[in-house]
Amino acid sequence: MIVALAGGVGGAKLADGLYAELPAGQLVVIGNTADDLVLHGLHISPDLDTVMYTLSGLANPLTGWGIAGDTFQALEMMARYGGPDWFRLGDRDLATHISRTALLHSGATLTHTTAQLITALGIQATLLPMCDERVETIIETPDGPLSFQDYFVHRGCRDQVRGVHVQGIEQATITEAIQEALTKASAIVICPSNPLVSVGPILAVPGMRQAIRRSGVPIVAVSPIIAGQAVKGPAATMLQGLGLEVSAAGVAKVYEDLRPIMLIDEADAALAPAVEAAGARPVAAPILMQTVQDRHSLARRVLQLCGYPLAAVSGNKQASDQR
Amino acid sequence: MIVALAGGVGGAKLADGLYAELPAGQLVVIGNTADDLVLHGLHISPDLDTVMYTLSGLANPLTGWGIAGDTFQALEMMARYGGPDWFRLGDRDLATHISRTALLHSGATLTHTTAQLITALGIQATLLPMCDERVETIIETPDGPLSFQDYFVHRGCRDQVRGVHVQGIEQATITEAIQEALTKASAIVICPSNPLVSVGPILAVPGMRQAIRRSGVPIVAVSPIIAGQAVKGPAATMLQGLGLEVSAAGVAKVYEDLRPIMLIDEADAALAPAVEAAGARPVAAPILMQTVQDRHSLARRVLQLCGYPLAAVSGNKQASDQR
Repeated sequence: MIVALAGGVGGAKLADGLYAELPAGQLVVIGNTADDLVLHGLHISPDLDTVMYTLSGLANPLTGWGIAGDTFQALEMMARYGGPDWFRLGDRDLATHISRTALLHSGATLTHTTAQLITALGIQATLLPMCDERVETIIETPDGPLSFQDYFVHRGCRDQVRGVHVQGIEQATITEAIQEALTKASAIVICPSNPLVSVGPILAVPGMRQAIRRSGVPIVAVSPIIAGQAVKGPAATMLQGLGLEVSAAGVAKVYEDLRPIMLIDEADAALAPAVEAAGARPVAAPILMQTVQDRHSLARRVLQLCGYPLAAVSGNKQASDQR
Repeated sequence: MIVALAGGVGGAKLADGLYAELPAGQLVVIGNTADDLVLHGLHISPDLDTVMYTLSGLANPLTGWGIAGDTFQALEMMARYGGPDWFRLGDRDLATHISRTALLHSGATLTHTTAQLITALGIQATLLPMCDERVETIIETPDGPLSFQDYFVHRGCRDQVRGVHVQGIEQATITEAIQEALTKASAIVICPSNPLVSVGPILAVPGMRQAIRRSGVPIVAVSPIIAGQAVKGPAATMLQGLGLEVSAAGVAKVYEDLRPIMLIDEADAALAPAVEAAGARPVAAPILMQTVQDRHSLARRVLQLCGYPLAAVSGNKQASDQR
């Protein structure tokens, strides 16, 4: 069983590759929920949804969020009623948030709720929220603190980042499902997601870093930074804002205590000594995922580094290729 | 100021006629909320919505419910998640329920919530829920009790009706807004809605019948039964099931204590003595509303019987005709 830590788009892409290459039921994704927000009274989990939509083949490849071909009739009408429309919620996407909110209101945990949605979409992998408590990433800017989606979507990442913290994380606890997954894991993959606001909050759940270290299995991290730039999103600005190097070596620093095998891009081969100095074992390879085939290739490379028996690899691939 | 008691489609049509004929701000509609239901965690008020969509010109004239041209993307997806889809909720219609539910969860009353939605849609009339408490019409059938929407939509009115009662109505109270409207009313109109499950619950709010009687203003009721048949919905079956005559006279019986002026159809002119025997003053006229023009004509006739100064009549008509 492979446990992958994933944020949004980049994480979902590698998770999709792993899902395609592994036998059914062998992938557990731990998703970031510190980006969650409540809008229109609905509980929205953008990162969980990106993973879920990607693994089910529903994702919109053009935007990186939402469902391909979705319409926006409800949102237009909600705006007419005075509701906010800066967070673009498609009609089919709304169904996810309505269903999730109804389940949560009925007393289900986010873990249980997510399992139900995942199963309904026919996904043969496990998606676990990093915790069941409500936590929230706060971005410190010169104009004061902003909630993550306010910074990211509403204000389009235009603010200078002076600090990042996850509100409520002290009260968060590792769920039983995550504990069990870490016990059964034969390797742990840190997907190429933002180390500060995507993987960061997952690792910030009290006890998570220790639990991962203690699992004693290979840890393979994939750098989200290639040639000094983030493949997507504000990772570069954020690393810089926090005084970290905008490179695979800067990312390795964030994961220093985990001493991972670190996949860096071929273009960054010269960074190997710096990555090694940050406690990781660097491996250079092509890591940019542009096509679905790229996801599969990277996943195979990751699994190889995980020590996963390659003969067992190829489970869901055909289904995935047919999409 | 004219106060109209209305249920769904028939009530909304006459309310629309009154809205067109009266000066802006002179119409108050008291709507039935005993048909309300919670589905997908959302508070749905079908009768309030039918009035609201009709007065705003959004109503779907083909179905009698929902919004013209609405799509059903979200509902299809909710069904995929295992949610019920027998109650057809369009995407734009969903926006109403999402917005209402968010307002209610924030602590607003249904009265306040409805006012906000009505204002947002630019409607220059007042729509008041019959009460702010949650009540529910229960239909007694040979197979046991059914909630109204279960009987009406889910099972398509196929069950025999042995009784009707409104659960929770003992705890309902007349709202301040309704009290004020009844004080200011120059006449009260009972729209051609189902007397048992649309107007009935409104009149069943403790003190409502007394408050209407004590207002001392003309009361004009329009029969929803023409030539022994309900224009729409299960009124005929219900009257029959409860041992009442399926006619304007049977309807007059339900309103007996209110001693209304009762508009019956020309086709039912022969029923005048029976209507009179039930305490009402019968007036025969064409009352079937098929076209928008029919709504206006009937509204003018109603206003005339209300003793409303006809010179003042014609306020919103032009706007309504242009739709």
